[in-house]
Amino acid sequence: MKIAIAGAGAMGSRFGIMLHKAGNDVILIDTWTDHVNAIKKFGLKANFNGEDIVEKIPIFFPEEVQDYKDSIDVVILFTKAMQLESILKSIKPILKKDTKVLCLLNGLGHEDTIEKYIDKKNILLGNTIWTASIIGPGEVKLFGDGELDLQNVHPAGKEVALEIVKILKDAGLNGNYRENVKYSIWRKACLNGAINGICTILDTNIMSFGATKVSSQIITTIINEFAAVAKVENIILDVEEIKKLIISTYDPNKIGSHYPSMHQDLIQNKRLTEIDYINGAVFRKGKKYNIPTPYCQLITELVHAKEEILGAK
Amino acid sequence: MKIAIAGAGAMGSRFGIMLHKAGNDVILIDTWTDHVNAIKKFGLKANFNGEDIVEKIPIFFPEEVQDYKDSIDVVILFTKAMQLESILKSIKPILKKDTKVLCLLNGLGHEDTIEKYIDKKNILLGNTIWTASIIGPGEVKLFGDGELDLQNVHPAGKEVALEIVKILKDAGLNGNYRENVKYSIWRKACLNGAINGICTILDTNIMSFGATKVSSQIITTIINEFAAVAKVENIILDVEEIKKLIISTYDPNKIGSHYPSMHQDLIQNKRLTEIDYINGAVFRKGKKYNIPTPYCQLITELVHAKEEILGAK
Repeated sequence: MKIAIAGAGAMGSRFGIMLHKAGNDVILIDTWTDHVNAIKKFGLKANFNGEDIVEKIPIFFPEEVQDYKDSIDVVILFTKAMQLESILKSIKPILKKDTKVLCLLNGLGHEDTIEKYIDKKNILLGNTIWTASIIGPGEVKLFGDGELDLQNVHPAGKEVALEIVKILKDAGLNGNYRENVKYSIWRKACLNGAINGICTILDTNIMSFGATKVSSQIITTIINEFAAVAKVENIILDVEEIKKLIISTYDPNKIGSHYPSMHQDLIQNKRLTEIDYINGAVFRKGKKYNIPTPYCQLITELVHAKEEILGAK
Repeated sequence: MKIAIAGAGAMGSRFGIMLHKAGNDVILIDTWTDHVNAIKKFGLKANFNGEDIVEKIPIFFPEEVQDYKDSIDVVILFTKAMQLESILKSIKPILKKDTKVLCLLNGLGHEDTIEKYIDKKNILLGNTIWTASIIGPGEVKLFGDGELDLQNVHPAGKEVALEIVKILKDAGLNGNYRENVKYSIWRKACLNGAINGICTILDTNIMSFGATKVSSQIITTIINEFAAVAKVENIILDVEEIKKLIISTYDPNKIGSHYPSMHQDLIQNKRLTEIDYINGAVFRKGKKYNIPTPYCQLITELVHAKEEILGAK
């Protein structure tokens, strides 16, 4: 099974390493120059549950990938949302007619982008709770346990979905087939949408936002906007359950003292955010379905304003 | 004419000094300990259009004001919005049945608070473009020109309004009687409501916010929310005119490089803001009139969240 990981950041590296260790033929594709060059030269280094390892995995810049002579059976997408379209364009030449594409990006609406390049029958969507972090170019830290859920977008894709679940299981990645993976994608996006943009704008951690008197009203309004839009797509979000889940994250013994990844991207590293694929996606869908989502809209606008003010790239 | 200035910050000091210089019997009332004590000891110092002057004006803490034996003809309110109610309570003992109260606070809805303490016939509302700044306790800087508009709230108050206009004119304060002073109060609140909260949350100056791609959409939505609520109160705001006025403030040769006063209060000095009397007032009124104002609501909530996060007092 030839597998391409498009987007070899922290999570892409985890999947690449674990699939490669399990004997699959893996290639990586990424745009970060220092990272790609380091892996080309030294292999992909990882502290894998405490053990220092190096996996020699071929890695390509998107513009180089046409040089790869074999064609790919499965592409796993782990890019930043903003890079999805350009990476799909560059890997097009190495895709076969039946190459499967599994999208594990955070956020909403990626299937609309992927469908422009890939037949719907070959698209799978997934959602993972695995974690990973980048130590520096060519080096990642992989700790703890996780799993991922996936499902075919088109009914005809179920058999292949089950095949991929098996490959992921064999690699220790705990893949599960889910009848309604879109629900978990929406639920995760809603969790992120209620917290990440707000903590970024307010320049605060999850716990401090949670402690404010207004936090309950803000997250309730955002969750309700997500739920109203999701309903049109036949996803019924459980507003109370998600609210409880969010409130549980305020606990300093859990992730309360963390700054959301969007805060790390924008405030700490002056990078563009994925807001267009979280609150921004709900606003765009809401507009299409004629459902007002003013909180999602203003949060998206404020994050974009902050990106411009900080000169994020 | 005995005049009490309730709230002797920068602007209250300007009015106190100019009315006192013109021969009126003026007292000041303020809560800032160092400022009040300095004025008690040394008089109110001012750089008044380049000239260093000292005006010996009696000043009181609110809790001391009962000791003032004379009763007051006119009270000019220049407190912070949050202090309005408590200062009205403390000056109550020195008010006569026909003492006039002129409110020059920024923001909306103060007449509702004042009406709880003062007969509507004695209330005047005003709006000023005079400027002033505090140099330190007991010392202000007064430069440039200005004017103020005022009007009685109750039709029966017109005669007194004209009398007060004359006093202000005689003191060089360029008072004008206006048939629709509420219009200029709303217009100024709308200008502040479109910019101040947003620049505070984004921690940016007016110019940098104005340069973002989203600024036009954000200010348009906010102005429209103000206009929809104002309309219920028979104030017809000119959305396009206000939008042009706001865009003109982005000019670095005007006030573009300034941080709005709310930013100075909260981000620079960790003080509570007047957001409840600007966007917050529009949200409360909108709720009462059943008009959705989600941008004003979220801006109010975000500013309050930031106040709590910064421990503002």
